[in-house]
Amino acid sequence: MDKQGIVRLIEELSQKKIDMKDKDFLLTWEKTGDEIDATFLVADILRAMRENNISPRIWDSGIAVSNFRDNSTRTRFSYSSACNLLGLYVQDLDEGKSQIAHGETVRETANMISFLSEAIGIRDDMYLGEGDKYQREVARSLDQGVAAGVLPARPTVVNLQSDIDHPTQAMADFLHLVHYFGGKDGLKGKKIAMTWAYSPSYGKPLSVPQGIIGLASRFGMDISLAYPEGYDLIPEVVALSQKQAKESGGKLTVTHSMDEAFKDADIVYPKSWAPYDVMLKRVPLLHNGDQAGLKELEKSALANNAKFKDWECTEEKMKLTRNGKALYMHCLPADITGVSCASGEVAASVFDRYRDDTYREASYKPYIIAAMILLGRFASPATVLKNLLTRNTIREQA
Amino acid sequence: MDKQGIVRLIEELSQKKIDMKDKDFLLTWEKTGDEIDATFLVADILRAMRENNISPRIWDSGIAVSNFRDNSTRTRFSYSSACNLLGLYVQDLDEGKSQIAHGETVRETANMISFLSEAIGIRDDMYLGEGDKYQREVARSLDQGVAAGVLPARPTVVNLQSDIDHPTQAMADFLHLVHYFGGKDGLKGKKIAMTWAYSPSYGKPLSVPQGIIGLASRFGMDISLAYPEGYDLIPEVVALSQKQAKESGGKLTVTHSMDEAFKDADIVYPKSWAPYDVMLKRVPLLHNGDQAGLKELEKSALANNAKFKDWECTEEKMKLTRNGKALYMHCLPADITGVSCASGEVAASVFDRYRDDTYREASYKPYIIAAMILLGRFASPATVLKNLLTRNTIREQA
Amino acid sequence: MDKQGIVRLIEELSQKKIDMKDKDFLLTWEKTGDEIDATFLVADILRAMRENNISPRIWDSGIAVSNFRDNSTRTRFSYSSACNLLGLYVQDLDEGKSQIAHGETVRETANMISFLSEAIGIRDDMYLGEGDKYQREVARSLDQGVAAGVLPARPTVVNLQSDIDHPTQAMADFLHLVHYFGGKDGLKGKKIAMTWAYSPSYGKPLSVPQGIIGLASRFGMDISLAYPEGYDLIPEVVALSQKQAKESGGKLTVTHSMDEAFKDADIVYPKSWAPYDVMLKRVPLLHNGDQAGLKELEKSALANNAKFKDWECTEEKMKLTRNGKALYMHCLPADITGVSCASGEVAASVFDRYRDDTYREASYKPYIIAAMILLGRFASPATVLKNLLTRNTIREQA
Repeated sequence: MDKQGIVRLIEELSQKKIDMKDKDFLLTWEKTGDEIDATFLVADILRAMRENNISPRIWDSGIAVSNFRDNSTRTRFSYSSACNLLGLYVQDLDEGKSQIAHGETVRETANMISFLSEAIGIRDDMYLGEGDKYQREVARSLDQGVAAGVLPARPTVVNLQSDIDHPTQAMADFLHLVHYFGGKDGLKGKKIAMTWAYSPSYGKPLSVPQGIIGLASRFGMDISLAYPEGYDLIPEVVALSQKQAKESGGKLTVTHSMDEAFKDADIVYPKSWAPYDVMLKRVPLLHNGDQAGLKELEKSALANNAKFKDWECTEEKMKLTRNGKALYMHCLPADITGVSCASGEVAASVFDRYRDDTYREASYKPYIIAAMILLGRFASPATVLKNLLTRNTIREQA
Repeated sequence: MDKQGIVRLIEELSQKKIDMKDKDFLLTWEKTGDEIDATFLVADILRAMRENNISPRIWDSGIAVSNFRDNSTRTRFSYSSACNLLGLYVQDLDEGKSQIAHGETVRETANMISFLSEAIGIRDDMYLGEGDKYQREVARSLDQGVAAGVLPARPTVVNLQSDIDHPTQAMADFLHLVHYFGGKDGLKGKKIAMTWAYSPSYGKPLSVPQGIIGLASRFGMDISLAYPEGYDLIPEVVALSQKQAKESGGKLTVTHSMDEAFKDADIVYPKSWAPYDVMLKRVPLLHNGDQAGLKELEKSALANNAKFKDWECTEEKMKLTRNGKALYMHCLPADITGVSCASGEVAASVFDRYRDDTYREASYKPYIIAAMILLGRFASPATVLKNLLTRNTIREQA
Repeated sequence: MDKQGIVRLIEELSQKKIDMKDKDFLLTWEKTGDEIDATFLVADILRAMRENNISPRIWDSGIAVSNFRDNSTRTRFSYSSACNLLGLYVQDLDEGKSQIAHGETVRETANMISFLSEAIGIRDDMYLGEGDKYQREVARSLDQGVAAGVLPARPTVVNLQSDIDHPTQAMADFLHLVHYFGGKDGLKGKKIAMTWAYSPSYGKPLSVPQGIIGLASRFGMDISLAYPEGYDLIPEVVALSQKQAKESGGKLTVTHSMDEAFKDADIVYPKSWAPYDVMLKRVPLLHNGDQAGLKELEKSALANNAKFKDWECTEEKMKLTRNGKALYMHCLPADITGVSCASGEVAASVFDRYRDDTYREASYKPYIIAAMILLGRFASPATVLKNLLTRNTIREQA
């Protein structure tokens, strides 16, 4: 895309009716359609600016807090890259991993780390029923800090994965789809199979499949959510997605057959997750540091998983999809049969064919995160971007 | 404050007689009155510049070393924010926590990390008799490196808490007081109660109360230092503060009654610390990694603490202060009764009333640290700040 | 050096025939003579620019990945300083230390961390036969990512120490020598003693001595490689260095006498390393986490070391060198007898006399690393540097 293209996208952005300033990005379904569109647009604009060697650096100083309560390499790099692109310095907040802070501690810490901060990225996906709550508690504390005149500005909280949603992943995945299918309208009526897949591990969060159905249901898609009996997602998220799907002219069907989900699918997203009730049982064990209990739960969960080794995205399964050519998606890393494990989510030959597509899918994440931060900080993002374009600072001095 | 206000502060700064370039900020009592004033002024100027969206970024590249020998979230963020504001990248120096380096190792490391560095922040408060010594050893090594032509510039060492003083805390606390009482002259004659308070923990450093009396005694204040018998501070620091108090037209009285300290106080600072002799006994145990000895010392120290649970900043105690309205201060986090512990330093209702004040108090720290770095690096800080104002780079592109 | 001097160096650089863009810096002997020269020149130019307060900042945003599989303070600071000088933000990649990733994992991770990255620094020197291989696997993955259109640019991989070479160390060491002896021609015919020295530790990598002989042999030097029998280096590296030495008009002799090496030497580099076969035996033990096996190997290795305590750089040995005044070198930290250990690599009085020289030697490393990054990213580094000079941004606003 050239500079004229960027100008056109900014013009399109300026038409969107949004109310995102001093708000957070926690769940995609809390955002309006225009706000989702605006996020995609800003991400595309930032990427195009960088690719045209125009610096999208908004701040010449400023802190971005990163709070990873669970390990992550990919999301950490995406967040750092996003913050750095906008001019922010990432400072890690290293709290203990086993305990979730509450009340006074959250309120105080949120203020103490925010005197010169513009963004706070939080990953907290292990404790079902707690991650999203914690992020909201931080957000509320920031509101209080601003109201009390303690904080000069309201840092945006970006959900880098909670127990409920994984919006930076889902939004990046869908920006990939929007480009793959030539625009948002290209998604209408497309069938997407969000299916469970076997993995020799347990305890993987529910936020990816929940994020995918929560967002796919905004675009009039035909969503087939498939998993073995017992591997339910949070019921409220499924219900909300079904409601959204209906409203957008699509539908969401739950099935316990991977084949049925793959049948004529345009897109397949085979990915392991832990059953809802296992995740629930795990929370008190984690809090109590009950190693024996965790070991036992793991053992029974793995034994149960092992009954469903046929939930694998094989060449045979791929043949069931539309013309045998559905787009394969994954948030990575995938458990690849014969490569990363003896038996996993996807056959090596299938993954091989789509490897570059999954990498491209991932490449949108830094820009999605940067867009979320920018939109959370400025009332008129189109004006800010226009000013950056006019300023025309080069990113790389060649 | 508007731009004209900033110009006036810079003018005021230019009148101060200071000799801070290529020096370190280790103990407030090593600084002259003009140097203390200059530090307050630069902090206020940097804050006002940022609030007027004028970038105080001095360096477009440069390293700030952070060396935290003890854990810290707040000070870490303050230091990062300060360095980032001036344009420095913070690189952590991660040495072992249990051993203090000496001699050749310190000399060499100090030089190896400083080839492109502008500041070195060190926190080392656990080992009584060693933290300050270590900071001076680093400083001396830097002097040698500059003299030998090995280092192109002399990075400033900033004491982020030692066994003796906590100057970034004390200076931030007093800048808060200066603003609260409408100027430095407003502190004259005010009574400040620096008192021990009960906490169900042990081993808290002495540097906060020492830092407070060491600085309060510069402003003609009436200082009441209160603690249960046995909870002495370093005797030399108390003696020096008494001398300073006298010279500035104030006084420092030691009492073993919290009520007496609170009586008619304008400011109260109730805060737990470990007895001097417990801190002394702890040093060899820490060095030897003597877990059993440490456990035993902790047990006896906690048992002793428990005798003084009535040293709590309650509503009743607050009523003793001037008009019942003394300003409550704390370096945070406070041990709040019924909130962070069953019985602690302060009643929940008292803390609630002053929460925003304590947050405001903390908000000065990044600017104080930035001021210390700037003053350690430039012979004419007023000129540098004037140039930044003239340059007029915006911090946030809106 | 003044600005005119910088212009002359850039002119000299523009004469060099190099092909370094989108390539990595893994082994010095993969680089042509002109490429080695260009690296020295860029390092000198960057240093001179900084010393003239001209900012060599090429990027206003961009990520530099740091991947330290082994601990390091010095190299970490050198890398951070180099990246920061060019405008890059360093993000650590924190992989497990005990396992080396392979295949799919490397390929994927290399791409996931590189969407907005310009450089990847890797230190991996513990596992003989694996460190260099791993760096090449990362490099190949990046090539694939660029070819697939997944990555917008090819980050340069910089070897921050592998099992084979330590090019940032060796290049810094030789830039020091070039300046010490008044130019590259001054090295011709000089005798350098790269000798083993006793240390009460074991398992030190071979990459420093290998790096030194691999580079010294490019300059027509008389290299004396000395070590006790059994302390061989990788045979291929010695053979290659001998071939290079011959081609450059110098020679490389292996001896088992420290005295013979020191005899008439112009430069001495006494440094401990582990025997080749001990390093080989260690690899499977490390992979299996075989603590007992490692303990036993350490014990026998230390016992063997102890037979050679007389391999120490003493005053007596120094007297054997040319006029008793050979330049002493070390990559630091040195094991100094009576200082850092009872008996070590070098006598305290010798080290004392050369301390500042070793610090100066180390001071070139940040600039060497920055030069490697710059040369890996731009086809015409002379043009880039000329543009930076013309732009004339100041680094420090005074």
